[in-house]
Amino acid sequence: MEPGPCSRPAEPGHCVSGPAGAGSAFPESPLSVAGAEPGNRPGTVAAVLPAGGCGERMGVRTPKQFCRVLERPLISYTLQAMERVCWIKDIVVTVTGENMEAMRSIIQRYGHKRISLAEAGATRHRSIFNGLKALAEDQPDCKLTKPEVVIIHDAVRPFVEEDILLRVVLAAKEHGCSDFDLEFGTECLQLALKYCHRKAKLVEGPPALWKVTYKQDLCAAEAMIKEKISQEICVVMNTKDEESVGHLLEEALRKELNCMKITSTVMDHIGGDIRNFIEQCYSFICVNVVSPDSQETRKLLRILEESSLPLLYPVVVVLVHCFDFTSVPLAQKMESLVWIRGLAKEVKERNILLSGLLLNYSQDEQKLQESLGQSAAIIAALVKERNSALVGQLLVA
Amino acid sequence: MEPGPCSRPAEPGHCVSGPAGAGSAFPESPLSVAGAEPGNRPGTVAAVLPAGGCGERMGVRTPKQFCRVLERPLISYTLQAMERVCWIKDIVVTVTGENMEAMRSIIQRYGHKRISLAEAGATRHRSIFNGLKALAEDQPDCKLTKPEVVIIHDAVRPFVEEDILLRVVLAAKEHGCSDFDLEFGTECLQLALKYCHRKAKLVEGPPALWKVTYKQDLCAAEAMIKEKISQEICVVMNTKDEESVGHLLEEALRKELNCMKITSTVMDHIGGDIRNFIEQCYSFICVNVVSPDSQETRKLLRILEESSLPLLYPVVVVLVHCFDFTSVPLAQKMESLVWIRGLAKEVKERNILLSGLLLNYSQDEQKLQESLGQSAAIIAALVKERNSALVGQLLVA
Repeated sequence: MEPGPCSRPAEPGHCVSGPAGAGSAFPESPLSVAGAEPGNRPGTVAAVLPAGGCGERMGVRTPKQFCRVLERPLISYTLQAMERVCWIKDIVVTVTGENMEAMRSIIQRYGHKRISLAEAGATRHRSIFNGLKALAEDQPDCKLTKPEVVIIHDAVRPFVEEDILLRVVLAAKEHGCSDFDLEFGTECLQLALKYCHRKAKLVEGPPALWKVTYKQDLCAAEAMIKEKISQEICVVMNTKDEESVGHLLEEALRKELNCMKITSTVMDHIGGDIRNFIEQCYSFICVNVVSPDSQETRKLLRILEESSLPLLYPVVVVLVHCFDFTSVPLAQKMESLVWIRGLAKEVKERNILLSGLLLNYSQDEQKLQESLGQSAAIIAALVKERNSALVGQLLVA
Repeated sequence: MEPGPCSRPAEPGHCVSGPAGAGSAFPESPLSVAGAEPGNRPGTVAAVLPAGGCGERMGVRTPKQFCRVLERPLISYTLQAMERVCWIKDIVVTVTGENMEAMRSIIQRYGHKRISLAEAGATRHRSIFNGLKALAEDQPDCKLTKPEVVIIHDAVRPFVEEDILLRVVLAAKEHGCSDFDLEFGTECLQLALKYCHRKAKLVEGPPALWKVTYKQDLCAAEAMIKEKISQEICVVMNTKDEESVGHLLEEALRKELNCMKITSTVMDHIGGDIRNFIEQCYSFICVNVVSPDSQETRKLLRILEESSLPLLYPVVVVLVHCFDFTSVPLAQKMESLVWIRGLAKEVKERNILLSGLLLNYSQDEQKLQESLGQSAAIIAALVKERNSALVGQLLVA
């Protein structure tokens, strides 16, 4: 029972029901929500994600929760967001029988944890009810812990953060009932009343909680995910020299991408320092001022392959080769770098997008600055768009 | 008086008020709207576009109607959509005093026609009223024709089509009042009642009519505009030969971009045939099997520069050079094509994105097919993303 378009934004991002008799629903809202005080403890919490929708409004045959964003099903992003929250003990996803197998393989392929499946009902409410049933102790061979609070979160709202979830849970434990909300709230509030005999309370949520409903939302989701994973760039250099072109490029990148975090490390530290980055970084710029050496590159690629990064998002690696275009003919240099094409084809299979960039390390200060600026712009394009069609290319700045 | 987030989708895409006493407002809706019968005539129609919003919910300082999408302010896209409709005689945009100059320069720069400006009021309703006043005959030195019907359309709903506008206007002339709509409709319906003493009627609109409100909507708008202008690709060949690699590439493009329209013409016809394409086409793939010749390319670029195309959207031009990689060393070929970099820099100023592509016209059928496939994928990336950072590059397939 998906709501009509008019009621869409009023549809809750979450509903909460719990023994304290509170519930809450998030309408889309411009107000951002402050994180809750560290002192507050959420208690035993579980989540139910109704994912039985057929996505008819999306105008595509695939249910929207299974539509692919950067090659990964949308629901996997939502699961990832919920999993990140350590105090959510169990996550129950309700899917229709015909999608049960697809859902299982998504969980297996992307290594999702603490997930149980329940059969979706004929309506959204029924699906939520089935999810709650799965969490109830009186179920036969139920390995799930009976929670104090249950978060009910749409499978198609991938951009949910811990602070807002914590706030919902605390609201569930603290707040009393509100007739106004029941009057003007959404169907989930009536659900809380009907099935739990408890009244509910509306709480403001951030706009990022918006729900993927129409085709344009899917475009927006992809753009926002790309933006999110492009927030940090790691520049890997093969020299400690503070004066090196690597540091100059780092500076150029700061200018070009002022909103992004630029970190840097030395190639020798690969496997050491670099492991500190790969948890949150999906873009690596390797600056090579000595003879092109594929060994260091292969070492970095191996570390990335061994990490879980390429499993979740395409990882961008740009090999920057710096030399004076007047000293070595560009063409000759390009021939010496053809190995990049083969290597790129190899690692593309593992969701790593490798390309090469030739930087004019000119003695002429102006030419050098021009090349640095253009390099930064090209790197920004590769990082922001993560387009697999451009892997293996040798770009010139 | 922008509505709160809850009422966002319920906010009208259009309101119509007219002597027939009808009005209509479009909630967002999955239902697409059928074009009206050709027999129906809209009569004298004008449009009022309230553009006084401050875009506070966008989370940026620029009012959302002035936010840039592909380097062009959002409102220019909406004006373009309204201008396209020949039977809309006058378009009145209401802007705040501080944005009046910015608005004038947008109209001037993008050559918008039939536009008048009016000062926005303190509230959305007041702005609409000011726009209506500007259309009333009793205004001093008013050059605007008094319309039979006035369409009121949000400046931040750029994806409005003629069929829906016609339907609104006809509804305005035909429909009576509806108490239900007034009860459950939005503020614009009350406006129609209050200022025009007429009741209004809700009419379903398509989801594409959605309003740009939040940051994610801006991402979606850009993605949808890119998709829209990438619907057609023109392959320009320098031979009529049906067996030519140009036709093979055309086929590969059809496979890669099955949703797009691929047209083709012969270079000799440039200035002739090609003018038939440039009205609706923003992507040109020039296939060159003989020695690289910049003259034909310059001829095409000149025609594009003289057209209005690059004024409205970035135009993509890819120069494809086909040769057997085993017969001519890749590096040598690249050196012979460096002129593309300089030319690309030149035309980039005029919003034309030029890049080169080397296609392996191999005797080996498998290698040829591989190269054709990769070429199609690279072209698709350049066409879909229109990233100016990649202009002047020589890509290899």
